[in-house]
Amino acid sequence: MKVEVGTAYYPEDWDNERVEYDARLMREAGMSYVRMGEFAWSHMEPRENIFEFKWLHDAVDIFGKNGVRTILCTPSSAAPAWMCRKYPGILRMKRNGERAWFGVRDHTCYTSKKYRELVLKTAGKMALEFKDDPNIAGWQIDNEAGCSRFPECFCPDCQAAFREYVRDKYKTLENLNDAWRTTFWSGEFFDWDELELEANWENMGSCRTVESKRFRSREQADFILCQAEAIRKIIPDALIGTNNYCGADRYEMFSKLDFAGNDFYPKVNADMYSTLLPVVRYRGLKQGVAPWMLETPPRPGWPVRDQMRFYFWLYVGQGYNPIFYFHWNSHLSGNEKLTQTIIGASGKPGVKYEMLKKLIAEADSVLSPYPGLSLPRCECAIIQDYEADWVYAVGFPERMEARSNTFFTCFSALSGLGATPEIISPDANLAEYKLVVMPLQAHIRKDIAEKLKEFVSGGGVLIMNGSSGMFDGNGKNLPEDGPQHVREIFGMTIGENRIFDSPKILAYDPSEEFARKNVVVSGSLDGMDAVGTAAQWTGYITVSSAEILLTFANSELKGRPFCTVNRYGKGYAIYFAADRIDQELCNRLVLYAAKKAGIIPVIYPAEVAVSKRDNLVFLSNFNDSAVEFKTGWKGRNLLGSSLRDGVITLPPRESAVVETASETP
Amino acid sequence: MKVEVGTAYYPEDWDNERVEYDARLMREAGMSYVRMGEFAWSHMEPRENIFEFKWLHDAVDIFGKNGVRTILCTPSSAAPAWMCRKYPGILRMKRNGERAWFGVRDHTCYTSKKYRELVLKTAGKMALEFKDDPNIAGWQIDNEAGCSRFPECFCPDCQAAFREYVRDKYKTLENLNDAWRTTFWSGEFFDWDELELEANWENMGSCRTVESKRFRSREQADFILCQAEAIRKIIPDALIGTNNYCGADRYEMFSKLDFAGNDFYPKVNADMYSTLLPVVRYRGLKQGVAPWMLETPPRPGWPVRDQMRFYFWLYVGQGYNPIFYFHWNSHLSGNEKLTQTIIGASGKPGVKYEMLKKLIAEADSVLSPYPGLSLPRCECAIIQDYEADWVYAVGFPERMEARSNTFFTCFSALSGLGATPEIISPDANLAEYKLVVMPLQAHIRKDIAEKLKEFVSGGGVLIMNGSSGMFDGNGKNLPEDGPQHVREIFGMTIGENRIFDSPKILAYDPSEEFARKNVVVSGSLDGMDAVGTAAQWTGYITVSSAEILLTFANSELKGRPFCTVNRYGKGYAIYFAADRIDQELCNRLVLYAAKKAGIIPVIYPAEVAVSKRDNLVFLSNFNDSAVEFKTGWKGRNLLGSSLRDGVITLPPRESAVVETASETP
Amino acid sequence: MKVEVGTAYYPEDWDNERVEYDARLMREAGMSYVRMGEFAWSHMEPRENIFEFKWLHDAVDIFGKNGVRTILCTPSSAAPAWMCRKYPGILRMKRNGERAWFGVRDHTCYTSKKYRELVLKTAGKMALEFKDDPNIAGWQIDNEAGCSRFPECFCPDCQAAFREYVRDKYKTLENLNDAWRTTFWSGEFFDWDELELEANWENMGSCRTVESKRFRSREQADFILCQAEAIRKIIPDALIGTNNYCGADRYEMFSKLDFAGNDFYPKVNADMYSTLLPVVRYRGLKQGVAPWMLETPPRPGWPVRDQMRFYFWLYVGQGYNPIFYFHWNSHLSGNEKLTQTIIGASGKPGVKYEMLKKLIAEADSVLSPYPGLSLPRCECAIIQDYEADWVYAVGFPERMEARSNTFFTCFSALSGLGATPEIISPDANLAEYKLVVMPLQAHIRKDIAEKLKEFVSGGGVLIMNGSSGMFDGNGKNLPEDGPQHVREIFGMTIGENRIFDSPKILAYDPSEEFARKNVVVSGSLDGMDAVGTAAQWTGYITVSSAEILLTFANSELKGRPFCTVNRYGKGYAIYFAADRIDQELCNRLVLYAAKKAGIIPVIYPAEVAVSKRDNLVFLSNFNDSAVEFKTGWKGRNLLGSSLRDGVITLPPRESAVVETASETP
Repeated sequence: MKVEVGTAYYPEDWDNERVEYDARLMREAGMSYVRMGEFAWSHMEPRENIFEFKWLHDAVDIFGKNGVRTILCTPSSAAPAWMCRKYPGILRMKRNGERAWFGVRDHTCYTSKKYRELVLKTAGKMALEFKDDPNIAGWQIDNEAGCSRFPECFCPDCQAAFREYVRDKYKTLENLNDAWRTTFWSGEFFDWDELELEANWENMGSCRTVESKRFRSREQADFILCQAEAIRKIIPDALIGTNNYCGADRYEMFSKLDFAGNDFYPKVNADMYSTLLPVVRYRGLKQGVAPWMLETPPRPGWPVRDQMRFYFWLYVGQGYNPIFYFHWNSHLSGNEKLTQTIIGASGKPGVKYEMLKKLIAEADSVLSPYPGLSLPRCECAIIQDYEADWVYAVGFPERMEARSNTFFTCFSALSGLGATPEIISPDANLAEYKLVVMPLQAHIRKDIAEKLKEFVSGGGVLIMNGSSGMFDGNGKNLPEDGPQHVREIFGMTIGENRIFDSPKILAYDPSEEFARKNVVVSGSLDGMDAVGTAAQWTGYITVSSAEILLTFANSELKGRPFCTVNRYGKGYAIYFAADRIDQELCNRLVLYAAKKAGIIPVIYPAEVAVSKRDNLVFLSNFNDSAVEFKTGWKGRNLLGSSLRDGVITLPPRESAVVETASETP
Repeated sequence: MKVEVGTAYYPEDWDNERVEYDARLMREAGMSYVRMGEFAWSHMEPRENIFEFKWLHDAVDIFGKNGVRTILCTPSSAAPAWMCRKYPGILRMKRNGERAWFGVRDHTCYTSKKYRELVLKTAGKMALEFKDDPNIAGWQIDNEAGCSRFPECFCPDCQAAFREYVRDKYKTLENLNDAWRTTFWSGEFFDWDELELEANWENMGSCRTVESKRFRSREQADFILCQAEAIRKIIPDALIGTNNYCGADRYEMFSKLDFAGNDFYPKVNADMYSTLLPVVRYRGLKQGVAPWMLETPPRPGWPVRDQMRFYFWLYVGQGYNPIFYFHWNSHLSGNEKLTQTIIGASGKPGVKYEMLKKLIAEADSVLSPYPGLSLPRCECAIIQDYEADWVYAVGFPERMEARSNTFFTCFSALSGLGATPEIISPDANLAEYKLVVMPLQAHIRKDIAEKLKEFVSGGGVLIMNGSSGMFDGNGKNLPEDGPQHVREIFGMTIGENRIFDSPKILAYDPSEEFARKNVVVSGSLDGMDAVGTAAQWTGYITVSSAEILLTFANSELKGRPFCTVNRYGKGYAIYFAADRIDQELCNRLVLYAAKKAGIIPVIYPAEVAVSKRDNLVFLSNFNDSAVEFKTGWKGRNLLGSSLRDGVITLPPRESAVVETASETP
Repeated sequence: MKVEVGTAYYPEDWDNERVEYDARLMREAGMSYVRMGEFAWSHMEPRENIFEFKWLHDAVDIFGKNGVRTILCTPSSAAPAWMCRKYPGILRMKRNGERAWFGVRDHTCYTSKKYRELVLKTAGKMALEFKDDPNIAGWQIDNEAGCSRFPECFCPDCQAAFREYVRDKYKTLENLNDAWRTTFWSGEFFDWDELELEANWENMGSCRTVESKRFRSREQADFILCQAEAIRKIIPDALIGTNNYCGADRYEMFSKLDFAGNDFYPKVNADMYSTLLPVVRYRGLKQGVAPWMLETPPRPGWPVRDQMRFYFWLYVGQGYNPIFYFHWNSHLSGNEKLTQTIIGASGKPGVKYEMLKKLIAEADSVLSPYPGLSLPRCECAIIQDYEADWVYAVGFPERMEARSNTFFTCFSALSGLGATPEIISPDANLAEYKLVVMPLQAHIRKDIAEKLKEFVSGGGVLIMNGSSGMFDGNGKNLPEDGPQHVREIFGMTIGENRIFDSPKILAYDPSEEFARKNVVVSGSLDGMDAVGTAAQWTGYITVSSAEILLTFANSELKGRPFCTVNRYGKGYAIYFAADRIDQELCNRLVLYAAKKAGIIPVIYPAEVAVSKRDNLVFLSNFNDSAVEFKTGWKGRNLLGSSLRDGVITLPPRESAVVETASETP
């Protein structure tokens, strides 16, 4: 296999002589791609309808001659000055009527008809210009859509489109008032024109807030997809993706593109799980398709180690290909002028360039013996359902934190089984996994419930928790016990819910003082005592066929079931009655579930990330000190010589790629 | 006595069948009241001038038939969508012209003429509809007026009304410029139209800021009272109140209503004094009238104890009756959908319902032998004067914290004498008390001074402190030493004030390091050494007839008087020369004063709240562990069997009601 | 020498009788000046074009008769109500169109043509009124320009003036796009009307942001200077200054005025260096001219010591004369009503008055034997270049903190040599100093480089660091290694820069854990081991003629040069390759440099500030405890008797003025 390496490049900022020079350096370093054009609208269309592409053709040609192919971007995230002045209606508007301004990026409205018209004209022009150019390897639409410094838009175009969307969906105001149950707080609507968008994160919790979020997610996706369509109309087989797509439903959007690009900037001295989560998330956006790393920094150290190589191998372990660095040579001005680049402001190849060149050579040498390396193997998955997240948290900003914490706790616990899990859509194919965790699935669609039934009855193990299945699709409380549609799988129901305050960090502590102020749960898992703490939300479990694993040890729920397991078909369904539990207890539960699922957990040292691709094991030591541990592996470390008699030593913040005799756990 | 129990109920959200079901459950639980209508405007008046009350009549009737009477609310806190769209001028406006929006509550202006017109029309219609209905037990005007998420209004109606108010008050601009002393910072007015409202908490400190606060307080009161008038015009004997009235002068407003309603949501694991303060405050708003608990949550535990019962008995001890829970059955949607309710979203009676039912039965059984139980006895009172608070802190936001801290310190010290004190208006009848604390009374009205003279000369003990009586009624510095109008009572004057920075938490520490950076005061109280620390503001005391109790031990005031006592008539007046002192020193001073007042302090264990009604002593243990202590009581604990040989044991977070042989201290 | 003492006074707030009384008190205390008029516009011009100056003439006369002369202020910082109402266009405007409001100060636009017209008319009237008045000692323009609570103005006048300014400067859009390198993020301009001001501290980093800052600095200066011109036109020899001029280039502005006034309010228990920095800064604004203390509080203690005297002697030691207290008698109302004043609200002379009187008598007695006392001697200086600061930090708000930290570290290190250094403009005369530190000089103008060459080749020692000389004058990265224009002086170049995250507080710690996460540098200075930590920014030093003093001890730069020294002509140039280093290391480097510069460092106890004027040594003990130390001095302490056999004892927070036999180090 070859991991293709690329970089963002801005020919609008340099003359052809410089481009020639840079292209030669890239060729010598073994680089495959440049990404160009994503902010160059003022250079492509300096005046309305005056298009200038010669500079871009020149750059594409120069790179092409050097064996470096181009990912071409539409420039829709940076509307130029003339456009903002001529069409102020394209600028985002706050609820109070205040408009965004020129001089930044992502200052425009995703819904604005005029902006869509301007964007599609330019995208179409680009496609026509480059449709026959063999040096174009693919397309990136926009750049980091959803990452604006401005809040969500409330412009008249958005309001009108929202009204139309809602009217199409509900047909009558009776339906709407009913679906949203608007009675409380005098919320009823009697005229379509009374309807306005709600802010995403206002503390409102009305169905209108969820619907507004849904609408905005759709508009943001359409903004990307209509550009993709415009290009495909002209270049039917164009390879199209986008990068760092945020704040909206990613699964739905990426299902209509060809690749999902991650822009990932590791934090200094970050811990392992916080780093892994965003890397793994993009891996799962398109099952079976390698994720692209579309931006990552060529920083040599933060501050004391060569972490460029460390992260490169982490990405490869997680299946990323290609990997783009952001970016090549420093802009002399503008917001990114201080960003670290491969070549720097001086424009001369230096230390970072040499590091990258060496890294590419190493990667080619290490990976060439594995031409058809498959994507990482995962026996476990965690489901993220954006719609369910909105139902849970939109309008209740403080709940997003609970949601994220729970997700993170489950992700960490699954990762502890020996390989990072996949993060997948509820619509993904579950048959590939043995153990699936679906944390805080506030709303369970009927068709998802059917999939879960099939998964469990076919032998899978499913974990669910807390207020899952307690809300309908618009976020309304269900007047029935949960978890809706899947009570049979779990052999229990849950109701009479109550909300407990919860500390930000949850950790169990065996003191009496702790037990006086926190909920304690205990029982036995696999014959061993288990104890922990639960928070945020809990309720009354009523068991039908399920077996009780843990019960409440204090509080007015003392003695009542907390966690149950149910044999359903060939599989098992486990439920615990809290929105949040502490990490240790979650680890115990996941271990228990893994055993039921026939997974043989392999315990690695703390802060060592593990990924497996065929018979290669990728290890990344996030510790600031060396770790040494015994494995059953008979192979060798392709990145060094530190594997001896099955004992491997990993220096601090370094990686290993171990070739094992065969696929081992 | 019977403590009546009620709940908020929203018939606009349910069909009659459901109302029937709920009414029956309430009857079975022994409940007396429902509160309805406070957010139902869109259901009462779905289109302008189209009123629909059938649903509400139905609900009132159904409940009535079940022995549950209705407190009917005017819906003025939640203007419906059609109204906000048709009359955008009713929405609150920020200083920058930005309007509040539909979708929340309390988004409307208290002053707006159009809004008053709309509100009064609906209130009048309601009164006409229900004037002869025997099931209406009383009326609540609006809901939690003053608790808006939007800042104070600056709309043209407010500005015009403010100009009119000021013009009426001052007649000429000369008077106004003089009364406000506008010269500094070019502040003089030469035309009435130049006048604009000031924000309450801007760091301005001008008299205009105080006047703006006063104006807004008046408008907020009028907004409530004009609705009460509209109802009384039709139902002259209607029993009318409101709830959780905030951010304005409560005494003046409630003096014109029939009852004061508190909405109290205890914090998890809150300490005793922070909990008591807001509970006691509402008790004192209408002397001699039982306060209503109009909202309190039916939460079974936060998170580990049955605190519903704990707080119920705390409220009863403090004289509350009736007690309403918020609320009955969960809304399926909207901002309160996650709020804990008695019945929950399922609509089926569960644990919380059973707890409440049991609690009502217990209360009936315990209290029925005491048909004429009087309100709690208080020998001590603390005076809160809203006008004086504004004079002290409006325009100087950081001073509000000092004000609150001092108030809290005094409240805690008084509570330590053996029973919670009353919090009263400066216009209240002082003759009922032996010891009165008037902390930080920045402005002392002449008539209040007369009352204080009468109180002290008649044998009362009065404590005052710091910059009391140093400002006139508009917040201007007085060009004379303080405390204005009461120098004779205290036998001293204070001047040459200086402001010291002050730490957020004040605690004395005997180290040299402490004394190098903090003011230390010391002396002797009742023959025992006393020492402590003072902060924020202090000054030079010049003694005429007073005796010096404590002096400054360091600082450039070293050796000068800090705290004095003066025999005046049959009583004593004590002054200490600081806006803030530490809690320990305050406790010492209050003990000293109590002795002078002939109060026999009874020291209870820390975090045990005590209240006395006739020969019943109500005890609430706020500790997370049991406490045991000896008393002189010969009676029994009506809530349990834990009183033996005068020794009582209180489990953690539980209450006791002790029947003593007679009224004991 | 006589230190003249004055106070701010507000005759608009008092009648003549009171003014007479106050004037007599001032005379009796030995005071020389009052400052009047700075907020009295509504009293000077109560209606447009109606001017009333009688009250002011009266006050000037009354004070004059008492030997107290007047500093007269233009009232441009507080536009009155009628003006704000008639000309709302003079009010500051936020980017979103929101205007500032009346009731505060500094609510007006520095650029507004109408406001300039109104301001100049009044300033001219004042000059005409008082041009022949012998009691006018000088003029203060405006008050604390740049200290507004409102953000920078974006009003149409500002936008138009900015466009004109930019057009004048760049002539063509090609020049502008090139000078600002606008290509990135579609930033190109194609029409002058597209240009808008940028906010100063938005996270933008574009050259337009720097240019906006520069424009605003110029406008703010012009606003002051045009008033000075208007007065000079009528009173050619008027002595004119202003006070607490903030947020703009101070050197350029004060070069056109006669004196620089500081408004300094010490913090409670502040440490020495934080206190010294703002005091020293104003001393260096006009080299060779005594700085004025135009406001400082007459607070007797904060809270436990007489600090009025302490700070008085600190100011005198630093060369201040005159010293004004803010202010005389408390306003009864308004924002400053709680400010501590000499006379207080009572208007009667009390403790503070007596303290001041005694202090003036002491100063007269101590200083009269030194009629021609020169300004403080400084062998060291630190350069602050506002333009370079903007280039470094504008558009990157978080960098301002790094800039300030570095400046503070260098200032502290220099102060540790035995006397506070001067803070000077890059245009100042360097010949007066032996050692000059130029920290983080992001942009080095060619003419400044020439001055530095002359300074070093003539025998001076120069320290520079980090990303100095890496940017052009508009803030663009230079496509060459740094430090631009001075590589020859330093005998090295620096490039391949990288940015490291940096902790807020930098302190080296010898643990392994520290070295794993922080950059460590080490080497030898003057034969002794030196070690420390560096942060924020660093790069590759390539040495030509320089000697390496310190190298990197870890990180991927391990072994490469960190700090170098170069013999250049008769002097030395020292460079260290980081934007920030820890204080200890900086102290070591400065000591090393001092030795090279022939400075004999005198080490005083920690937190003792030292300043030397001829043969007087001024000492200020910032410690909360007494310090005792041995000196070579044979003289006496003019403020006490504590110098014996060369051993001096300083009580906590007290000062000494030691008369030494001759000028000693």
